[in-house]
Amino acid sequence: MSDKWIEKSKCIKRVDAAWLKKGQARLDEQTRPQGSLGQLEEMICKLVSIQKAERLDVSKKRILVFAADHGVEQEGVSLYPREVTQAMVLNFINGGATINALARQLGADVKVIDVGVDGDLNDHSDLIKAKVRKGTGNLKIESAMSADELDQALQVGWDMVEAAEKDSIKILALGEMGIGNTTSAAAVIAAILNLPAAKVTGRGTGVDDDGLKLKIKVIDEAIKKYRAELNAPLDVLQRLGGLEIAAMTGAILAGAHKSIPVVVDGLIVAAATLIAFRLNPAILDYVFLAHESQEGGHRYVFEEFKQRPLLNLSMRLGEASGAALALNILEAGARIYNEVATFKEAEVANKKETI
Amino acid sequence: MSDKWIEKSKCIKRVDAAWLKKGQARLDEQTRPQGSLGQLEEMICKLVSIQKAERLDVSKKRILVFAADHGVEQEGVSLYPREVTQAMVLNFINGGATINALARQLGADVKVIDVGVDGDLNDHSDLIKAKVRKGTGNLKIESAMSADELDQALQVGWDMVEAAEKDSIKILALGEMGIGNTTSAAAVIAAILNLPAAKVTGRGTGVDDDGLKLKIKVIDEAIKKYRAELNAPLDVLQRLGGLEIAAMTGAILAGAHKSIPVVVDGLIVAAATLIAFRLNPAILDYVFLAHESQEGGHRYVFEEFKQRPLLNLSMRLGEASGAALALNILEAGARIYNEVATFKEAEVANKKETI
Repeated sequence: MSDKWIEKSKCIKRVDAAWLKKGQARLDEQTRPQGSLGQLEEMICKLVSIQKAERLDVSKKRILVFAADHGVEQEGVSLYPREVTQAMVLNFINGGATINALARQLGADVKVIDVGVDGDLNDHSDLIKAKVRKGTGNLKIESAMSADELDQALQVGWDMVEAAEKDSIKILALGEMGIGNTTSAAAVIAAILNLPAAKVTGRGTGVDDDGLKLKIKVIDEAIKKYRAELNAPLDVLQRLGGLEIAAMTGAILAGAHKSIPVVVDGLIVAAATLIAFRLNPAILDYVFLAHESQEGGHRYVFEEFKQRPLLNLSMRLGEASGAALALNILEAGARIYNEVATFKEAEVANKKETI
Repeated sequence: MSDKWIEKSKCIKRVDAAWLKKGQARLDEQTRPQGSLGQLEEMICKLVSIQKAERLDVSKKRILVFAADHGVEQEGVSLYPREVTQAMVLNFINGGATINALARQLGADVKVIDVGVDGDLNDHSDLIKAKVRKGTGNLKIESAMSADELDQALQVGWDMVEAAEKDSIKILALGEMGIGNTTSAAAVIAAILNLPAAKVTGRGTGVDDDGLKLKIKVIDEAIKKYRAELNAPLDVLQRLGGLEIAAMTGAILAGAHKSIPVVVDGLIVAAATLIAFRLNPAILDYVFLAHESQEGGHRYVFEEFKQRPLLNLSMRLGEASGAALALNILEAGARIYNEVATFKEAEVANKKETI
């Protein structure tokens, strides 16, 4: 099962550096001092290298919010009860959540994917029903999912990107909803980066000191007990991850495979990105790191990637909210790339030479 | 002359903390873990406290780009010749610059104010002709402007905010264009914060090591030579500042006076903000710090304000480009405040209680 995903990962190629250069050359011709847009210029060139076109197109944007429940929620690791996952899914499809307000600003559509919500949802045009099972197993005492379930969840994410491609979506943002999932994500990050849970675990929805200690204990014990099973990245994902984390891993692999830029949100998506990165580091050429979450573990992932995110607003919401804000910045970058006049066009003298 | 501005500054009142609380109370009722939007929540509450209304309104946005030339440009402190100020003003009103692309994304209008460009510009609907003089005096050897010219420049900025108020503009972004103005801004910041020029001076348009040394030398010498004249903030502005810096100081005072939120851009606007802050620290209640410029001096201003900016993308362009990006984030915040459902409305359980 996992061989199939290892094969798919191997097919992902790095972007062509010639397009990065081409992007920078155009930026350098525009009426600005060279390099004066800093990190935004890197992001623009990255978009150019993915889209491989003379002009950028981020007109059609889609936000994918993957939702699933987590067995580890039973340990009391969240301030909120499990039912909130399903209630928030309804809130998303009714347009009442934070991500909906942000999507309206962007003119992006929002698709909510039930990959493992513990409840039965009615049909809705913005809801993709792709439930693998009703929540994962409790990682403290059992594997979060079976190998077959992992395969299904990865495929759900892959399929969502394929559907987006068919709908001519030009850029994707990934986010999630799942009570208990900061524990799963921190567990995945701790296991992959071989860090103690204390370093990568945060307060999630806002648990107190005791809640934080509990989360750390659950993760450390699970990793210690099952260390022998935690070898390959997909083993970690199966043992400690979540169905939405697995689906987002599949989506990231598909985005990289199909050259669709993917903006990734906070800590939970970082866990998915880290798994994809370990399968093939080339995925980073297609991924935009939106923001640094207030969850402490996030920064170790950035260190591993040797990249810094676009925003640092101390957010810790999820739902792709940070990714949506970053999408605004990327859209600004695309506009700049497409619309700003060159020194020649505007008849502005470049440096001390005349034109 | 300066007494008039000191009087105007004194009238500025801090926002009413009751509105900050009211804003936070609504955010806390929305379907999100409390505090999960981090710094964005502070910005939203700040907007609420300025607009003093149940719902936020940032529908009408205006970007003010103040342009002026600088006598100190003659010292060779910029990579670009003086003529570029005028050429870029034409680029702005023709819609070809970076700020124009960003304004189109935002649906904001752009007004370019000639407060001291060394050249004669034709009429244009987006150009405000308010020239005080054709560029400042060279701060190395003379006062940048006279007391009367300072008064006129401050008034230009004030008038622009008054005009915006008449046009029902709900939020303003301030930026500038002026070859040589990173030297003037660094001089103002060094004099006000009593810091050596080496700490607050950057490469501006991108000068090399020799260019940077030259800038530092010019500033240190001017401050040393004229220290006795550099007492009150407006003295510093007159002696070392720029006409666009003075105009932006006037605009910030007016924004605070009229309760219109003002988003300030990079290092040059920081110098104007610092002068306004020294006249009355209450202005900070009305000012949004957009981004941290790559120009090193910027961070000392943030330290003085004890606030951190929204973005840090290593930009160093000016033109209100960083402010425009931040405006996107603030607009997102306004949408969240206005549109997101409460726990009660969405029937989502808040914490472990049922609703």
